[in-house]
Amino acid sequence: MTDLAAPGGKARLFVETALHEGARVIPGAQQSHYLLHVMRARIGDGVSLFNGRDGEWLARIAEASRRDCALMCECRTREQEPDCDLWLVFAPIKKAPVDYLAQKATELGVSVLQPVFTRRTVVHRVNSERLRANAIEAAEQSGRLTVPEIREPVELARLQSEWPHERHLLFCDEAGGLPILDALAGAPPTPWAVLTGPEGGFDEAERAAIREHRSTVAVSLGQRILRADTAALAALAIWQARFGRVSAV
Amino acid sequence: MTDLAAPGGKARLFVETALHEGARVIPGAQQSHYLLHVMRARIGDGVSLFNGRDGEWLARIAEASRRDCALMCECRTREQEPDCDLWLVFAPIKKAPVDYLAQKATELGVSVLQPVFTRRTVVHRVNSERLRANAIEAAEQSGRLTVPEIREPVELARLQSEWPHERHLLFCDEAGGLPILDALAGAPPTPWAVLTGPEGGFDEAERAAIREHRSTVAVSLGQRILRADTAALAALAIWQARFGRVSAV
Repeated sequence: MTDLAAPGGKARLFVETALHEGARVIPGAQQSHYLLHVMRARIGDGVSLFNGRDGEWLARIAEASRRDCALMCECRTREQEPDCDLWLVFAPIKKAPVDYLAQKATELGVSVLQPVFTRRTVVHRVNSERLRANAIEAAEQSGRLTVPEIREPVELARLQSEWPHERHLLFCDEAGGLPILDALAGAPPTPWAVLTGPEGGFDEAERAAIREHRSTVAVSLGQRILRADTAALAALAIWQARFGRVSAV
Repeated sequence: MTDLAAPGGKARLFVETALHEGARVIPGAQQSHYLLHVMRARIGDGVSLFNGRDGEWLARIAEASRRDCALMCECRTREQEPDCDLWLVFAPIKKAPVDYLAQKATELGVSVLQPVFTRRTVVHRVNSERLRANAIEAAEQSGRLTVPEIREPVELARLQSEWPHERHLLFCDEAGGLPILDALAGAPPTPWAVLTGPEGGFDEAERAAIREHRSTVAVSLGQRILRADTAALAALAIWQARFGRVSAV
């Protein structure tokens, strides 16, 4: 009876089922394949489970066939804890960078991924399932207790008209703004969203409308031209360094 | 006669040739292909050139055949300026993430990419040419005037014994350290290196040796487990927010 070693520790799976002592959990087809054929799990092996609500649980493989398995929850290993309240609002970019963006943004603690269509956005379809799959995998590997919510894409104008005013919008403006750490220095810690544009940037009318919006804090990420996904990740990392809770150890 | 529009502006190429008024520049085979067949350049079209030493120049296509072309330097459009002095020392990771790492680190302004072999490094070969190609492409697109130097991989012990003592080593320690912004708050701006480990982390003996080294500043990037490449990019972005020069506009 061993604990399955994944890179960084025991196998760790996100499931939808409620988790409590004695709960029986049936992993999805891909998760079962991963446990049985990648990790070569056997009956009695330990797996970590989380569902975004009930903390993290040690479960053991109770039944296994060639294709399926069932897990039994044994004990809670971590209490559920409040997450960062940090959205990423981003203009969709091509497939490989958006996979990467979903993965990295999840590692960097975003709670919501909100695609937004702008005038220069050249990607007009967002595969939400694919974004979610990337986010789940990153959450499993990063030790998060939640998976970010993937929202349906909206037009920029609608996003702005329906924006919850108390949420600060950290606008990474290619045309300049306060240096980001100066802008965050005196700012309240919550709630926030990071907004990044498409590969060609926002157009002038969009920029003006964003800058005029009362929730906007326009910032500069420096003098180099960053790709859209780099700008998003840089802003999230800097926000976390300023406001994120830091481990005690 | 037009200026070739690449994403983000005119076509922009890194070349090795000295750049001065009237200098004749022969792009490499891939660059010529890009200009002639991707950008559909014609005689008289403008291209931006940089070589890491002579600033940025406007050149025009002076001759073109099906496969080759020659450019003529017309005037300097930007003076060469001093770069950040920021190294990234990283344990090699698998191919796709290392391509991404070279690209993002270049955008985030590193001056040197130094691969380092550690006990848990599972990638034992580094394709320096491929790293350099990724770095050149990212430099061309990000508006940098230089391309980071790609160093040959070294063993961690040798890196430490030969370390230039005046260079601070920002050690992203999974086992914890000062919150990164606190560590950088009172620190001198130059020179620095960021050090990140392999996917399985440094082993205990390595960690202890790194922490004992007089140049080391051990920092925490927060409570989540970051992939090796994410940790590197987060540390570089935060360093730039703290020390990078910010554009005036």
